[in-house]
Amino acid sequence: MRNIKLTISYDGTEFHGFQTQPNLRTVQGALQGRLEEVVGHPVSIIGSGRTDAGVHARGQVVNFHTSSRVPVEKWPIVCNVKLPNDLVVTAAEEVPEDWHARFNARGKVYRYLIDRGAYPDVFLRMYSYHYPYQMCVERMIEAAAHLPGRHDFTSFCAANTPVEDKVRTLTAVDLKEEGHLLSVTCRGEGFLYNMVRIIVGTLLEVGRGKISPDQIPAILQACDRKRAGVTAPAHGLTMWEVLYD
Amino acid sequence: MRNIKLTISYDGTEFHGFQTQPNLRTVQGALQGRLEEVVGHPVSIIGSGRTDAGVHARGQVVNFHTSSRVPVEKWPIVCNVKLPNDLVVTAAEEVPEDWHARFNARGKVYRYLIDRGAYPDVFLRMYSYHYPYQMCVERMIEAAAHLPGRHDFTSFCAANTPVEDKVRTLTAVDLKEEGHLLSVTCRGEGFLYNMVRIIVGTLLEVGRGKISPDQIPAILQACDRKRAGVTAPAHGLTMWEVLYD
Repeated sequence: MRNIKLTISYDGTEFHGFQTQPNLRTVQGALQGRLEEVVGHPVSIIGSGRTDAGVHARGQVVNFHTSSRVPVEKWPIVCNVKLPNDLVVTAAEEVPEDWHARFNARGKVYRYLIDRGAYPDVFLRMYSYHYPYQMCVERMIEAAAHLPGRHDFTSFCAANTPVEDKVRTLTAVDLKEEGHLLSVTCRGEGFLYNMVRIIVGTLLEVGRGKISPDQIPAILQACDRKRAGVTAPAHGLTMWEVLYD
Repeated sequence: MRNIKLTISYDGTEFHGFQTQPNLRTVQGALQGRLEEVVGHPVSIIGSGRTDAGVHARGQVVNFHTSSRVPVEKWPIVCNVKLPNDLVVTAAEEVPEDWHARFNARGKVYRYLIDRGAYPDVFLRMYSYHYPYQMCVERMIEAAAHLPGRHDFTSFCAANTPVEDKVRTLTAVDLKEEGHLLSVTCRGEGFLYNMVRIIVGTLLEVGRGKISPDQIPAILQACDRKRAGVTAPAHGLTMWEVLYD
């Protein structure tokens, strides 16, 4: 069996998340249906990780095994010709048989986009969180500087998440202003459920003066979800890139 | 009666163009309905110009007369609270009673966005024309340089357009590359029906080598729509700005 790695990009607006669910339109479901049409046998898609309903991906990565002899460079074309236009295969590569999109991932990059305009940017309404409040970005940058490192991120993980070990290594939280847009890019070895959205929600509260930047270390140490800020909405979040060796 | 100028932004994807049409969703129809709810009397909206079905606007300008005493700075808020989310009022201003969004306009800026990536950029699929063919942008720039000036643009106007005088002054046609995106920004005192889309369609044929840059003056002089290139699709076009004194 050949092992094919695909890089995919999707607009999460009309998907009920990445993972297959009965009777719901999901990324995995749509892609799997198309791949099975092409290869003529059942296909099991392995994703680098799930994305929630409404979350987008610029560079999600999946792999699947197949007996198909379709040349590797043809995979994007044969998929895209019949995929819905909110899901695009952007690259394909043949990988060793034991390569695994999730287990081989060395890290991920997520970007959260905030629209600070007085009124929503109509062209980014589905891809950014409109947040027109007065905010001090310098304070947000100061707060973000406390987050990178190897920490127990329980305070920044959805409550009741059934993962035992909540220690993760976050390598960067970068804020960038461009006109009315503010992006928060998080890079790390791994992320917990809702982690980026809670980081962003917390930074927004710092920006508005509800949390002070020097409270961040105590919020981390508390290991208590209630200490961090709200979960920012899904539609501002994009899985930007999955990092492999 | 007060005269109110509104700047509006819309995603043209789900509108049947700007101008009111019976039983169709249009920008003018949606805005007029909302304004009449607010002011409690019939409202007649004057636009700076129409946009076709599928064409977007970043900064379309309209005006309307009203006896309403709503303070001018409140207009965006009272409109946006009930407008659909693909239509946003971004600014309001009280203008002299005889000010007219179309007659007072001194010029317009349109931007056409081309996605040159091998596969479509899923986040720009509704706002750019995916054109993954090999093209020489230098040749397109060379061709574009022949267009500014005061010319009879009959060759760059939809055939059978019932406007007699097809002389217009185009002040700039600027091409800009940013990664996989190529934008064509046209600035002029006035535009004919489909003019920007035909300019872009022609430049794309120049880019592919089907038309040479030095043929542009002869195409202009021919005053024959058949001599120019095809009309590029509507969804790549955005009315960027309307210029007033």
